[in-house]
Amino acid sequence: MIKTSMSLLLVLVAVSLTFGKYTPKTGKRIPQTLSRGWGDQLIWSQTYEEALYWARSRNKPLMVLFHLEDCPHSLALKKVFAEDNELQKLLDEDFIVLNLMYETTDKHLSPDGQYVPRIIFVDPSMTVRADVTGRYANRMYAYEPNDIKLLISNVKKAKKLLKSEL
Amino acid sequence: MIKTSMSLLLVLVAVSLTFGKYTPKTGKRIPQTLSRGWGDQLIWSQTYEEALYWARSRNKPLMVLFHLEDCPHSLALKKVFAEDNELQKLLDEDFIVLNLMYETTDKHLSPDGQYVPRIIFVDPSMTVRADVTGRYANRMYAYEPNDIKLLISNVKKAKKLLKSEL
Repeated sequence: MIKTSMSLLLVLVAVSLTFGKYTPKTGKRIPQTLSRGWGDQLIWSQTYEEALYWARSRNKPLMVLFHLEDCPHSLALKKVFAEDNELQKLLDEDFIVLNLMYETTDKHLSPDGQYVPRIIFVDPSMTVRADVTGRYANRMYAYEPNDIKLLISNVKKAKKLLKSEL
Repeated sequence: MIKTSMSLLLVLVAVSLTFGKYTPKTGKRIPQTLSRGWGDQLIWSQTYEEALYWARSRNKPLMVLFHLEDCPHSLALKKVFAEDNELQKLLDEDFIVLNLMYETTDKHLSPDGQYVPRIIFVDPSMTVRADVTGRYANRMYAYEPNDIKLLISNVKKAKKLLKSEL
């Protein structure tokens, strides 16, 4: 009997929590995440301003990742990127991370044009690491899923700060 | 027997989905949402650049909401804001919405200073609606939880575009 009452109570609580809340005409939506699938366990900055603030104040390099949700190259890279534990650990422990679907006004973030996927590292001294590049001469900051090892080695390169505070 | 096998299969699938995924030393985190609790059913822009793009292309006004997660005034407003169905419906159907915890470089978004919570409306013609104000002379774009009706009336005011396309 107590068990039944408890179940009933739980149902009532559940109903009261959802009842009367705003629901769009097109149906209930799943809240968007800041990770957008690139690593749910990473702490993503929301904006470039925020990311720069954290990079400066924590003296950590910043990784800016430009992508689009309807771009097959972005999606293919995302799958490998999110599942690579070495990469995720490096980024989580030593980097400030930001993924963007819209360009910023800072032209330094597009040294050879605006395309996706594109990964740019920024040193905490606010210097864009234009020297940390992938393997494509015409899109120097692009990575394919097969380039994940190169990306990890680039992350390690960017981890060595230009001006270390000793 | 079939039932048992199915349960076992489900358990195995569940285990394989979580097994081996990167987990931070401090324990598993809940992915951050773009809504940050201000309305999980709204489609939030991530950045100011993105929000301006949508405002222009959809000819909808933009609401920019500055807040901080450790500010009691922001938290008090958030509770009322998220639970007000009239407000949520208006914003969902007629506005582009953006909530920010870090200031942008656009000084027009802080007509009388940088404080939180602060709500600024931007017309799709890219004009900041400095005329849409709350009730506090020293912080003209601040709202308290008791001001929710005034906020709704301001949302309706901002909904009337400065230059309507006919």
